[in-house]
Amino acid sequence: MSGFFVRLRELAKENHSQVCVGLDPDPDRIPGGADSALRHCLRVVEATRGLVCCYKPNSAFWEQYGAEGFGALAELRARVPASIPFLYDAKRGDLDNTNRAYARAAFDVLKMDAITLHGYLGRDSLTRFASRVDRGCYLVCRTSNPSAEDLQHRDVEGAPLYIRMVELAEGVNQAGNLGLVVGATAPEQIAEIRRVTDLPFLIPGIGAQGGDLEGSVRAAWNGDQASCVINASRSILFAPDPRQAAQDLRDHINRTIGGL
Amino acid sequence: MSGFFVRLRELAKENHSQVCVGLDPDPDRIPGGADSALRHCLRVVEATRGLVCCYKPNSAFWEQYGAEGFGALAELRARVPASIPFLYDAKRGDLDNTNRAYARAAFDVLKMDAITLHGYLGRDSLTRFASRVDRGCYLVCRTSNPSAEDLQHRDVEGAPLYIRMVELAEGVNQAGNLGLVVGATAPEQIAEIRRVTDLPFLIPGIGAQGGDLEGSVRAAWNGDQASCVINASRSILFAPDPRQAAQDLRDHINRTIGGL
Repeated sequence: MSGFFVRLRELAKENHSQVCVGLDPDPDRIPGGADSALRHCLRVVEATRGLVCCYKPNSAFWEQYGAEGFGALAELRARVPASIPFLYDAKRGDLDNTNRAYARAAFDVLKMDAITLHGYLGRDSLTRFASRVDRGCYLVCRTSNPSAEDLQHRDVEGAPLYIRMVELAEGVNQAGNLGLVVGATAPEQIAEIRRVTDLPFLIPGIGAQGGDLEGSVRAAWNGDQASCVINASRSILFAPDPRQAAQDLRDHINRTIGGL
Repeated sequence: MSGFFVRLRELAKENHSQVCVGLDPDPDRIPGGADSALRHCLRVVEATRGLVCCYKPNSAFWEQYGAEGFGALAELRARVPASIPFLYDAKRGDLDNTNRAYARAAFDVLKMDAITLHGYLGRDSLTRFASRVDRGCYLVCRTSNPSAEDLQHRDVEGAPLYIRMVELAEGVNQAGNLGLVVGATAPEQIAEIRRVTDLPFLIPGIGAQGGDLEGSVRAAWNGDQASCVINASRSILFAPDPRQAAQDLRDHINRTIGGL
């Protein structure tokens, strides 16, 4: 099977879409436990699959259902064709020996195509995952949350910490299978990061988090289909009409790219 | 129920032990799947429970067994008395909305008493967990792996990044339920961190990772039973005699503390 980013780019072209849909079930909004969460997400995948380039389940939302949630996530992935990439938003990051087990869980048990990672442990955070060259890794770089600046904006020997994270990813990216997570709430930082790297960006933070869609697209897009993947979770997953919501977002992104 | 650190201190006094045993099953060493992993870990708990102050399952090693592993971990916790603290080494760290789901998974589904966390997202990384005042949180500060220095030792406006992580933890620690993860491979950094904080330390990295036990104990211990909890995983879990291995480690730590 070809690599994650190859398939992501192919599907983005085929569906003319930079949209990633977050599959984060919420027991407060979907009554009925893990089975209902699975059915809800399968319906949303069915409704949106011609309109997106990727799906992104966040591990937390499945783990909160316990073992049944873990099983439901595995079943969800198994019931969607392997040609449609699944990005496991798990933000893992541990010692190499531990990452070996996390990589097994993500790539071999859950059959995910890519994963998000924390880089605080340095190269050891990444190499075990990045060595799986048919899979993708996104390093958490500049997040979309209100307190992102607490550490990420601190000056580290002449550049913000998030720029040091870019350098870490660049240093490990021998197989071309690394990207960065940069939040839509910080389009200025996205632009700054784009000036120093051509790595693919995964951009969460629009919708419920209030990020700047157009500013983010303008800052991230560099002509590569993988350069600017925009994630929406709640605003599609819980929309009255998920297909319409995905289509509206897709068209909005495409209009913005078309105007560049 | 009293808070995690209260119970940790009580059990450390009662068992005269600063030892935490990591429960990280390895399918390459324990044939037979998640059930065998559970049975192996239960035997080790049974053999060591009068000699330790805490157990620390690492989420990765259970997730690699899939849904069965998640279920086995829940059963493991349920089969050990609630008075014996379980620290979930999961190194989670995400947006507040996501952390809410992670906290449910760790504290409500798995019934863990404490968790390890990544702080890269700033205060938002911690508050959802720390607001559960009966539970404990350990922020990943200075890790025990070879490439820990890649980012953690970089200078951040006059102090290393790991010291900025200490400040983040101190700023959130209103309920006295936060601690730090500092690796036994870096006793000089443990000493430096102890000079600026009285927070409890969880110290992994002895045994298979080759950390400095005596140097770490001397650097961390400040008279508080929670100040210096030493974790050993593989060196006890896969010892020919886990009880003897735990007792030897306990006695070694106690001799070191006695000589201070």
